[in-house]
Amino acid sequence: MLYLVGLGLADETDITVKGLEIVKKASRVYLEAYTSILLVDQSVLETYYGRSIVIADREMVESNSDEILRDAQTEDVAFLVVGDPFGATTHTDLVLRARELAIPVAAVPNASILSGIGAAGLQLYNFGQTVSMVFFTDSWRPASFYDRIKENRAIGLHTLVLLDIKVKEQSLENLARGRRVYEPPRYMTVGQCAQQMLEIEEEKGEGVYSPDSLAIGAARVGGKEQKFVAGTLRELCDADEVMGPPLHSLVLLGRRTHELEHEFVRDFALNKETWDRIWKAEYGKQ
Amino acid sequence: MLYLVGLGLADETDITVKGLEIVKKASRVYLEAYTSILLVDQSVLETYYGRSIVIADREMVESNSDEILRDAQTEDVAFLVVGDPFGATTHTDLVLRARELAIPVAAVPNASILSGIGAAGLQLYNFGQTVSMVFFTDSWRPASFYDRIKENRAIGLHTLVLLDIKVKEQSLENLARGRRVYEPPRYMTVGQCAQQMLEIEEEKGEGVYSPDSLAIGAARVGGKEQKFVAGTLRELCDADEVMGPPLHSLVLLGRRTHELEHEFVRDFALNKETWDRIWKAEYGKQ
Repeated sequence: MLYLVGLGLADETDITVKGLEIVKKASRVYLEAYTSILLVDQSVLETYYGRSIVIADREMVESNSDEILRDAQTEDVAFLVVGDPFGATTHTDLVLRARELAIPVAAVPNASILSGIGAAGLQLYNFGQTVSMVFFTDSWRPASFYDRIKENRAIGLHTLVLLDIKVKEQSLENLARGRRVYEPPRYMTVGQCAQQMLEIEEEKGEGVYSPDSLAIGAARVGGKEQKFVAGTLRELCDADEVMGPPLHSLVLLGRRTHELEHEFVRDFALNKETWDRIWKAEYGKQ
Repeated sequence: MLYLVGLGLADETDITVKGLEIVKKASRVYLEAYTSILLVDQSVLETYYGRSIVIADREMVESNSDEILRDAQTEDVAFLVVGDPFGATTHTDLVLRARELAIPVAAVPNASILSGIGAAGLQLYNFGQTVSMVFFTDSWRPASFYDRIKENRAIGLHTLVLLDIKVKEQSLENLARGRRVYEPPRYMTVGQCAQQMLEIEEEKGEGVYSPDSLAIGAARVGGKEQKFVAGTLRELCDADEVMGPPLHSLVLLGRRTHELEHEFVRDFALNKETWDRIWKAEYGKQ
């Protein structure tokens, strides 16, 4: 059996009891470690589970999945995923491959950032489609998020923006020379995300949002040091110090908000006066 | 401290290790039991936790929350919620009340149907806003879901439809006579939902969807007997026997689908020929 086990969002104790039992008994344990990370290290998990873990990087999952699935017709293999197992496309691929090999598959759900973000106080049924933001480079500034946000905002919905992480990346030079030397991991911050959003609005000029649009920065959702910071996009550009360490996400508010959301969220506002003024003028309209 | 503890979707082992530790140590343990249910009884939870549980019905949570929060400035109170603690508006209210009383609040996230539905094989970032479907009566047929689905479908997105549950409801006669006699619980099925959706389309006639629109029925998501059934809305009207016992949910597909979604989902199709034909004609277009 292939078990896809969700680990939740923060630390080693966020695994479910069901998930933990599977991990303890499986023949092999893999950890998918390139679409998201927990807030604790691999060694903490290994000690807690009493098991050694094989890190499954993108290359292994996408090109060498048969090694992960080896003998899973008769043995139990646990494939651990931060958040919920079906958060990322990659794992759909793995399940399809298991089906081809006649390997039974079971998933153990867990908290995902898509629902965990509800802790910020916004109603989950007021969210539209989720978008991703990648690190821009000089030559690569993918802006498909802009059109998606436009669609969400046109109907008044909030948008959850998931932020890029770069782990085990090689510099172009090391890649060209075939050196397996990796750059230090990078995690996009709320400030970088807000900045990139405003750059694209500047370029496209369709008025999908503005520096005065309200948003919430979220850090370490589900963890003990969880932090929400509410403000305008302009304010959030400079709020990384307040946000603290990774992982970060951002929510751009839609105008279809409930008074209860306002009451809950304004507690997180960097500047309550600005927040109230803009909210009153532009939000809370059905 | 007030702890909002998510229980996940299916049974007593879906609680996280962190959540279980809190439940075992809390002074009092409440279970919110009117917006959703687990697939096991209260007694199973009580045995597993080694604790007795107070059932918190709507009346208690909405009108008598101070009893739940009693002494929580100095004691730990665990408020258990099926799924994730921030799935329903009600709990936002409870947190706001705790804030007024200067009671610290912490939440333990868990799987929600909003992310758990990913197990059906549809990409979660292709979902629009979530809607609810209530049991229609002769005089009450709320159809606000229709406009929301219209918005989602206009931009090609999937819609998750959450289905009504009725627990601890009184008949009008018993209510009028002040008798605390309750009707047996009712859980809406995929068939009833599909039927009501088609009735409203018939009435409104805006062509938001049709009997031939593709959808997925989901039953007992996250449980051992999890079941997905894919078909047209017309087919799903008569699929309750295949779906089996509650809880059910439904996903109406948007046209913005990925080939990988097709490959995954067609495995669940009641009639693969119909499914492939309609998919090819109307879906998978960006």
